[in-house]
Amino acid sequence: MSALINTAFSEPELPFYSPSGSECLLFEHAYRNQLPVLLKGPTGCGKTRFVAHMAEKLGRKLYTVSCHDDLTSADLTGRYLLKGGETVWVDGPLTRAVREGAIVYLDEVVEARKDVTVVLHPVTDDRRLLPLERTGELIAAPPEFMLVVSYNPGYQNVLKSLKPSTRQRFIALEFGFPAPEEEARIVASESGLPRDRCVPLVRVANALRELTGQDIEEGASTRLVIHCASLIASGIKPEIAIEAALLQPLTDDPEVMRALVRIAEIALG
Amino acid sequence: MSALINTAFSEPELPFYSPSGSECLLFEHAYRNQLPVLLKGPTGCGKTRFVAHMAEKLGRKLYTVSCHDDLTSADLTGRYLLKGGETVWVDGPLTRAVREGAIVYLDEVVEARKDVTVVLHPVTDDRRLLPLERTGELIAAPPEFMLVVSYNPGYQNVLKSLKPSTRQRFIALEFGFPAPEEEARIVASESGLPRDRCVPLVRVANALRELTGQDIEEGASTRLVIHCASLIASGIKPEIAIEAALLQPLTDDPEVMRALVRIAEIALG
Amino acid sequence: MSALINTAFSEPELPFYSPSGSECLLFEHAYRNQLPVLLKGPTGCGKTRFVAHMAEKLGRKLYTVSCHDDLTSADLTGRYLLKGGETVWVDGPLTRAVREGAIVYLDEVVEARKDVTVVLHPVTDDRRLLPLERTGELIAAPPEFMLVVSYNPGYQNVLKSLKPSTRQRFIALEFGFPAPEEEARIVASESGLPRDRCVPLVRVANALRELTGQDIEEGASTRLVIHCASLIASGIKPEIAIEAALLQPLTDDPEVMRALVRIAEIALG
Amino acid sequence: MSALINTAFSEPELPFYSPSGSECLLFEHAYRNQLPVLLKGPTGCGKTRFVAHMAEKLGRKLYTVSCHDDLTSADLTGRYLLKGGETVWVDGPLTRAVREGAIVYLDEVVEARKDVTVVLHPVTDDRRLLPLERTGELIAAPPEFMLVVSYNPGYQNVLKSLKPSTRQRFIALEFGFPAPEEEARIVASESGLPRDRCVPLVRVANALRELTGQDIEEGASTRLVIHCASLIASGIKPEIAIEAALLQPLTDDPEVMRALVRIAEIALG
Amino acid sequence: MSALINTAFSEPELPFYSPSGSECLLFEHAYRNQLPVLLKGPTGCGKTRFVAHMAEKLGRKLYTVSCHDDLTSADLTGRYLLKGGETVWVDGPLTRAVREGAIVYLDEVVEARKDVTVVLHPVTDDRRLLPLERTGELIAAPPEFMLVVSYNPGYQNVLKSLKPSTRQRFIALEFGFPAPEEEARIVASESGLPRDRCVPLVRVANALRELTGQDIEEGASTRLVIHCASLIASGIKPEIAIEAALLQPLTDDPEVMRALVRIAEIALG
Amino acid sequence: MSALINTAFSEPELPFYSPSGSECLLFEHAYRNQLPVLLKGPTGCGKTRFVAHMAEKLGRKLYTVSCHDDLTSADLTGRYLLKGGETVWVDGPLTRAVREGAIVYLDEVVEARKDVTVVLHPVTDDRRLLPLERTGELIAAPPEFMLVVSYNPGYQNVLKSLKPSTRQRFIALEFGFPAPEEEARIVASESGLPRDRCVPLVRVANALRELTGQDIEEGASTRLVIHCASLIASGIKPEIAIEAALLQPLTDDPEVMRALVRIAEIALG
Repeated sequence: MSALINTAFSEPELPFYSPSGSECLLFEHAYRNQLPVLLKGPTGCGKTRFVAHMAEKLGRKLYTVSCHDDLTSADLTGRYLLKGGETVWVDGPLTRAVREGAIVYLDEVVEARKDVTVVLHPVTDDRRLLPLERTGELIAAPPEFMLVVSYNPGYQNVLKSLKPSTRQRFIALEFGFPAPEEEARIVASESGLPRDRCVPLVRVANALRELTGQDIEEGASTRLVIHCASLIASGIKPEIAIEAALLQPLTDDPEVMRALVRIAEIALG
Repeated sequence: MSALINTAFSEPELPFYSPSGSECLLFEHAYRNQLPVLLKGPTGCGKTRFVAHMAEKLGRKLYTVSCHDDLTSADLTGRYLLKGGETVWVDGPLTRAVREGAIVYLDEVVEARKDVTVVLHPVTDDRRLLPLERTGELIAAPPEFMLVVSYNPGYQNVLKSLKPSTRQRFIALEFGFPAPEEEARIVASESGLPRDRCVPLVRVANALRELTGQDIEEGASTRLVIHCASLIASGIKPEIAIEAALLQPLTDDPEVMRALVRIAEIALG
Repeated sequence: MSALINTAFSEPELPFYSPSGSECLLFEHAYRNQLPVLLKGPTGCGKTRFVAHMAEKLGRKLYTVSCHDDLTSADLTGRYLLKGGETVWVDGPLTRAVREGAIVYLDEVVEARKDVTVVLHPVTDDRRLLPLERTGELIAAPPEFMLVVSYNPGYQNVLKSLKPSTRQRFIALEFGFPAPEEEARIVASESGLPRDRCVPLVRVANALRELTGQDIEEGASTRLVIHCASLIASGIKPEIAIEAALLQPLTDDPEVMRALVRIAEIALG
Repeated sequence: MSALINTAFSEPELPFYSPSGSECLLFEHAYRNQLPVLLKGPTGCGKTRFVAHMAEKLGRKLYTVSCHDDLTSADLTGRYLLKGGETVWVDGPLTRAVREGAIVYLDEVVEARKDVTVVLHPVTDDRRLLPLERTGELIAAPPEFMLVVSYNPGYQNVLKSLKPSTRQRFIALEFGFPAPEEEARIVASESGLPRDRCVPLVRVANALRELTGQDIEEGASTRLVIHCASLIASGIKPEIAIEAALLQPLTDDPEVMRALVRIAEIALG
Repeated sequence: MSALINTAFSEPELPFYSPSGSECLLFEHAYRNQLPVLLKGPTGCGKTRFVAHMAEKLGRKLYTVSCHDDLTSADLTGRYLLKGGETVWVDGPLTRAVREGAIVYLDEVVEARKDVTVVLHPVTDDRRLLPLERTGELIAAPPEFMLVVSYNPGYQNVLKSLKPSTRQRFIALEFGFPAPEEEARIVASESGLPRDRCVPLVRVANALRELTGQDIEEGASTRLVIHCASLIASGIKPEIAIEAALLQPLTDDPEVMRALVRIAEIALG
Repeated sequence: MSALINTAFSEPELPFYSPSGSECLLFEHAYRNQLPVLLKGPTGCGKTRFVAHMAEKLGRKLYTVSCHDDLTSADLTGRYLLKGGETVWVDGPLTRAVREGAIVYLDEVVEARKDVTVVLHPVTDDRRLLPLERTGELIAAPPEFMLVVSYNPGYQNVLKSLKPSTRQRFIALEFGFPAPEEEARIVASESGLPRDRCVPLVRVANALRELTGQDIEEGASTRLVIHCASLIASGIKPEIAIEAALLQPLTDDPEVMRALVRIAEIALG
């Protein structure tokens, strides 16, 4: 598995990304027109990688934030910390991105608490302003600043969704898994396992993805296929690697597990 | 897309707004009679823009606050911060607006927590007083101070609504989308795309708006139409721009998505 | 609209109030017998005005607190604040009223959190004591101190109500809207619109009040009628003023709105 | 209305209390055997007065705490406060009572939060110890210390009740309203209204008490009858005083109100 | 009632405990094998007394903590307090017990918040380690340290129970009420009432215990029988003492109360 | 019972672990390929022991964290503490493990709060980065760092589960109880009881495990069998030790208890 380093750190090579449609073009034009972008798609299909790729291509630093139930606007904008008996303001990742003209990526944005709208709304309408209510500052975003958010519509519940007033601020791109040959090429490149040995693993993954929403919540991601190939390349027997890396992460139900093993056997031929 | 700057910052030109009824007249008379105003209407129909326009026209500074689940009265009035071992009071946007005789605009006010009534009630009855309970101060609002609030009745739930005792303090104005020709003119002006190329985009938006409350939560806003026109003006093919800017932001359901694509095709002719 | 100033500020004139029963007499005797008073009645029928009037008449300073979901006993009694590295106690409005022998008015008391009972109970039984648990102080209320609370039984829900052990400490007075001729006189006096032009507006309001609990949560308050008359006196056409000030604040439902417009037309004749 | 002062303050006279059974004897023996006491009974029947009377009789200082939803064990035991950059421990009312050998009375104890058990359990079993976990102190209660709690079983809900492991630490006494002649004597003594004029008021109260749990949550308390008699003694007409002091505090429902008026008329004869 | 003092305080005599099975032997062997112990049984059957007895017998200091809804791991392990502008760590009772090789007893452990598992798990598996995450300390428990927890399965609800991963760390002992003659002996010894006068009281208690889970949540505890006997020894008439100490603490329902009185009369013969 | 010491402390001998499949091989290859590992299995089947064994074998220090309802990302990454009037950052166990290239083991990870994803996601994808948002630091994990998490699928509820986007980052290994002869060998080795006397105890445990999910939530763990054997080796009679160590920890229901006793008798023969 290659040691891909986050684009926020100065390194020369462009993170590998294989486009499957017009997503690169749309992202670039959204950037040039200062429009925020929303990425939709299943787990591990390459959304994070895509943003890293585009950030590098556009020559912009990237700040990534994994959103969660307790993430508040202060986690994005910053907060006061006590230093030497004095409160000192420390910028959050969004504020840093606005000041530096960077790209900020909020992964699984629907997980964040509702007060993030207080900062997302003014930076995503034509004002492009970041209000820091605690300090009273109002920062105008430079043209180079870009906001990207993502979420997975597959297991998004009713309670957690973006309000229309938030959604309708974004250009939205839908992501899926790459085509089989393409995915085999990616898996081979990331794991070091020869491409012809990756093809049956991708076939297993695609057979599992057809069960999404029925017996399993989500099919195996490209990331899991790479894990599996890495274990095989490292010397683990294929059937053991497939069970540990492709099947066990998908279910805890013994009966479903038996069905997955059977499906994998059939897919392998 | 024009770089409209918030009216809180001193700039000469009046934010463009195209009135569709007597809303400008009513707003102005409400201001002169020191009556607070409530704006009702769907996402992205121009409420924020209208307030910015009126603030500029009346020569008043504007403070905008996007309300959310965790917004409390302290976020509006101010709080004590620790500086040099001493607590220092820092005014919130409402307090600043009252002191300076400015307009304060609470966007989506129903999202705020219930303790905001503690400050909204006394500034919206005939006393026009802002009590700062933490400091014990009681500030009388000058005649130039005005409170404007908005919300979107379309997706307002039962738990979140203004109590009659709060609502019945406001003059209420209802907003809708501009007429087609007018909207095309606005889109052309904001995106730089020729007006005749904007007309079919507005037609698509209106076809989508008829589905509101059925398959989609809300129809495409004027803001989305401008996004779409900006991408086309920037060189993206119309069908790709329409999908990314007008359709994908409205739904995550593949079946609904296919229906929206078909509706867009019909509207384009 | 007259600029009525809060009675907490030293000004000569008595806030105008037009009694409709024995409420002034009962309030005065409750004050003389050191009994707390509970006011019940719909939004905008004059409860706040009545308390301001009585406070002025009895020569007592008035502290008004709008209660809400997050109001705690500390908001009423006071709290410690950090000043110069030292915690300093700052009295809340209730404590100030007890110390100064003033009237404190808790508007919509059922909205407050349950810990307010900790301060309401001892000041409303024969002990008339205010315990400040944080400081260990126990303040005896002077005979001039009076507690007044109010709430609106119309939209009070099951979860939020006064416990009998709290309610049964108060003399209770019920309020309604003034008689039509009286209300027209009040509206004329507050808005500056001639009385004969106020009469049809009051007729519209009374027609709307008959719908309370059916299509609308509450009928139009006297305050809304004054708003409406102010706009007309200021030059707005009556039908536009009626829609913005009397009808739009009552509902968001387009169908109900059409019914209200029709009812208003009939009432205007 | 007599100005009864809290027994926590040194004053000579014994708070008037008229015993209706063996409650004084039981309380005294519980005190001598160092047993905690639980008082059960409706609102305003004299539980608080009884405790004040017994505290005076036994020569013990009394600390009264009105319990509520947010009352925690720290409110009873004490907390650290910041003074001059140093945290200083400040005793709560329970700790003060234990240190001084006083009586502490927790009114409506079921309203308190569950962590109060942490202090109630060790002081109510044979150890009679008060642990101050924050300071690491463990205070042995002197024989003179006594814990008294009360609650009203009438409107106690399922969620809020004492756990058996807490209840089974107390001697329990049930309270009701005094007999009619006795109650008339108490009302006369407290209000200054001649006794024969108090008799019909008590008759009204008893008629209302028969409706408890049907149309009204609780019948009129002795406190309300005293309020009513005080207003009459002060010059208010009986029918107006009865409505404001005895009927309006019991219900907000207009239909129930009409029934209560009729019942009062019948009781008055 | 004898003045039993907590064993944490150096006093010579062994707290009286009358074993009813092999519980003393099992406890001692669990102690010698460094196994944690779980005590199950109804309110007031002697669990706390048993632990005090065993701690004295084994020559170990005892720390008792009454668990509740808001008890967190920090309440057990300790926390930082601000002293002289410096944060100072203060050990909680569990940490003190680990450092000193004492017995810590968590009464009604299921009431505690779930984060107590963070400290219970490592001290109850073969590592016997107490991690203090705030200080980064990891304390190895000496062989003399012992953890004892208890709960009452009778009124334990579904939401509150020990997870199997926690339960399966303990030797579990079940407790019940002592045999009638034994209980009479205990009651006589604790109350000072002659043993033959205690026998009928125990008979009443046992009659009441048969109703557990039907009309009453739990039957009368041994503690209540001792309270009752103490009142009688002190001069209160038996029927009054029985009602106040044995019956009123069990129910608030008048009908159930009448049934309990009848059952007591029958049991007394 | 042997005094096994946590591997975080420098001691020579390898914690005893008896592999039952390819788990050691898979764990080692996951470590070499820098893949995070998820362990699934019932309470007390040896997951914690397995991680301790592997950490020792791979020569890595081990940090173990028992997760719970209130565990947040700050508990894992660290927080600011006030020292000498200055805030000082103190690393949490995850941060320490990343800095030192150690193994961190999150036991029952599904119990933790959702904001732990903010730190788990970036350290488990190809970036292998730990963001410390409070300090603005971004630490790259060395190849020696490894994240291991575990949970028990048996009693995992619907509300608490790993999101697919989190799960699909791990190689997953399923654990069960060891084979009977193997388990008897482990129990003998840990308790000091001769192996032939351990065999019937393991037979009882396996009989109880067949009831899992029916009358009892989980069957007896290997840990409980060791407890039981330790008590017997220490001199307690087998039937008493079995009841206290194997049966009472499984249920509180008297009827189920009787059934378990009967099952144990049959299994013992």
